[in-house]
Amino acid sequence: MLTATYAGDRTIAIAEATEEPPAPGQVRLQVAYVGLCGTDLHILHGNMDARVRTPLVFGHEMSGTIDAIGDGVEGWHEGQQVTVMPLAWDGTCPACLAGNEHICQNLDFIGIDSPGALQATWNVPAEVLVPLPDDMALDAAALVEPVAVAVHDVRRAEIRGGERAVVIGGGPIGVLIATVARAFGAEVAVVELDATRRAQVAALGFEALDPREVDQVGWVEEWTDGAGADVVFEVSGAAQAVLGATALAKVRGTLVVVAIHPTPREIDLQRVFWRELRILGARVYERTDFERAVELIADGTIPTDVLITKIVPLAETGAAFEDLEAGRAMKVLVDVQAGQEASA
Amino acid sequence: MLTATYAGDRTIAIAEATEEPPAPGQVRLQVAYVGLCGTDLHILHGNMDARVRTPLVFGHEMSGTIDAIGDGVEGWHEGQQVTVMPLAWDGTCPACLAGNEHICQNLDFIGIDSPGALQATWNVPAEVLVPLPDDMALDAAALVEPVAVAVHDVRRAEIRGGERAVVIGGGPIGVLIATVARAFGAEVAVVELDATRRAQVAALGFEALDPREVDQVGWVEEWTDGAGADVVFEVSGAAQAVLGATALAKVRGTLVVVAIHPTPREIDLQRVFWRELRILGARVYERTDFERAVELIADGTIPTDVLITKIVPLAETGAAFEDLEAGRAMKVLVDVQAGQEASA
Ligand SMILES: [Zn+2]
Ligand SMILES: [Zn+2]
Repeated sequence: MLTATYAGDRTIAIAEATEEPPAPGQVRLQVAYVGLCGTDLHILHGNMDARVRTPLVFGHEMSGTIDAIGDGVEGWHEGQQVTVMPLAWDGTCPACLAGNEHICQNLDFIGIDSPGALQATWNVPAEVLVPLPDDMALDAAALVEPVAVAVHDVRRAEIRGGERAVVIGGGPIGVLIATVARAFGAEVAVVELDATRRAQVAALGFEALDPREVDQVGWVEEWTDGAGADVVFEVSGAAQAVLGATALAKVRGTLVVVAIHPTPREIDLQRVFWRELRILGARVYERTDFERAVELIADGTIPTDVLITKIVPLAETGAAFEDLEAGRAMKVLVDVQAGQEASA
Repeated sequence: MLTATYAGDRTIAIAEATEEPPAPGQVRLQVAYVGLCGTDLHILHGNMDARVRTPLVFGHEMSGTIDAIGDGVEGWHEGQQVTVMPLAWDGTCPACLAGNEHICQNLDFIGIDSPGALQATWNVPAEVLVPLPDDMALDAAALVEPVAVAVHDVRRAEIRGGERAVVIGGGPIGVLIATVARAFGAEVAVVELDATRRAQVAALGFEALDPREVDQVGWVEEWTDGAGADVVFEVSGAAQAVLGATALAKVRGTLVVVAIHPTPREIDLQRVFWRELRILGARVYERTDFERAVELIADGTIPTDVLITKIVPLAETGAAFEDLEAGRAMKVLVDVQAGQEASA
């Protein structure tokens, strides 16, 4: 079978591998689609070389069907549609013992710290499986993982109906957070520099602000009758956005840090103090986030057709990253089975 | 009567003023003691000139007795010992309507935005009064306001019994936070650069760390069995302390920003994200904080004798700031009645 691997040195290689039977406690999945994301791009750029052992079969946003079931696994059947919550924790560290297994201090993020989904069949421990409805399209289902990120971010913010949220950054994660926040009852405005993305955001029914054209502090103040936003999601990763974000939040409002900020960022702590703001880190997801994400895709809340820009065969995985890097794509999926026949 | 006023231009003037009867709704207090704090020092340095109208009778940490009662005021009696919660809110802004009157968007902080306590008698609205026990020493009672700050900070952190807290900065507010956190059931370590302050902190029974001598991250990790601190209080105001503070907190731990940071500070958002930390601003206090502060002084929890370094007559208010600036004093009180006879 064929796999897509990060080979080090900014290179993706399509490599042959041998299909293995599932070990006890595992299931073998026939992988259908794998989404490519910003983290994969970081891997490709070598930013995570200290963490990643090459060659790495990567990919952690996936959908597929159960192909074979290992000894001792119960409650699943062959042919069942599933996705994977790609986290493995030790269960023994202080974070796990406090109930925060999803951010275990020794977390194995599957697809980064151990082999991922970009292979025709994939053996995973049964504990990571998340069931999908039988009638869910498997391309849409490859979005469950990023939707679960958004659900986690929105749940972390404790958004309640009628609240007003600002999302800084209108890329795929920003759009998903905006969509989920709206599903939780919030009104949402999205701040985005890129005109194409702003148009997509507006087409989805959100306020779309260009911070170079609009005084965003004044706009948010007027929008919220002088209060400020209940929640601000920082999804852009930009230093300037972080510095400005605190000015958008109401007294006792919340700023959720979703983006990766590789270097320390300046924050207006005077504003944090003055308004008694709350800044929350939000990372990955819990099982409940996955379950809610499946529901939000199943009921049509998530505009998967708008979000999936392109589907490419496995052999074109490397080239697909060029679209992502250029900001030309919201979400690119790899059709992992396309082209496997040549290998078999 | 004599008053101490900030006259602008880094100058404190001892000025004559006329004693007035209390207006309807007010009481007149005979002021006993007024504590000087870092905010007063900021006023004196001119850092708050944009906000302060000179000449300003300042001072907001006080104790005294009721001297006269204005029309319409009920529930108080002459001679009663009281202190003042020096906040006046509009009751109509979004923050007030959401129940956060203490950080009203148009807050009048009495002693900064309107005249304060450094005068022989002081007329205040009855709503700001907080009763004191009849037998409480009035010098100790002048600490109720800073203790209320500490209670607010600790309550904001939602500290529970058995948790471990790190306080960065062992000045008067840091010591009060450490003391209150311990009263709430936490074990506390204090990080402080100054050897004299470290000795005071240690004498009060806290772990006192010199961050230049001890690897504080390693120390906290060992102290907490590999977890990290439940809560970190940033009281130092130092940029370097903010940058290092996030490394001390456990997964889902809390960093409370207590100090004033006049310029934006770098924060390790990668760590905030990775451990899903929570950063909270904490400003002033609510009435419940004042009531708890009175209890903590009444029951001897607060080491007022250690904290009150010096008591000076009103005429020496200006000179007393030199001790504060030099870091030679924990808490300096002004004995407002001392020397008033000469004026009367
Ligand atoms: Zn763990
Ligand atoms: Zn108000």
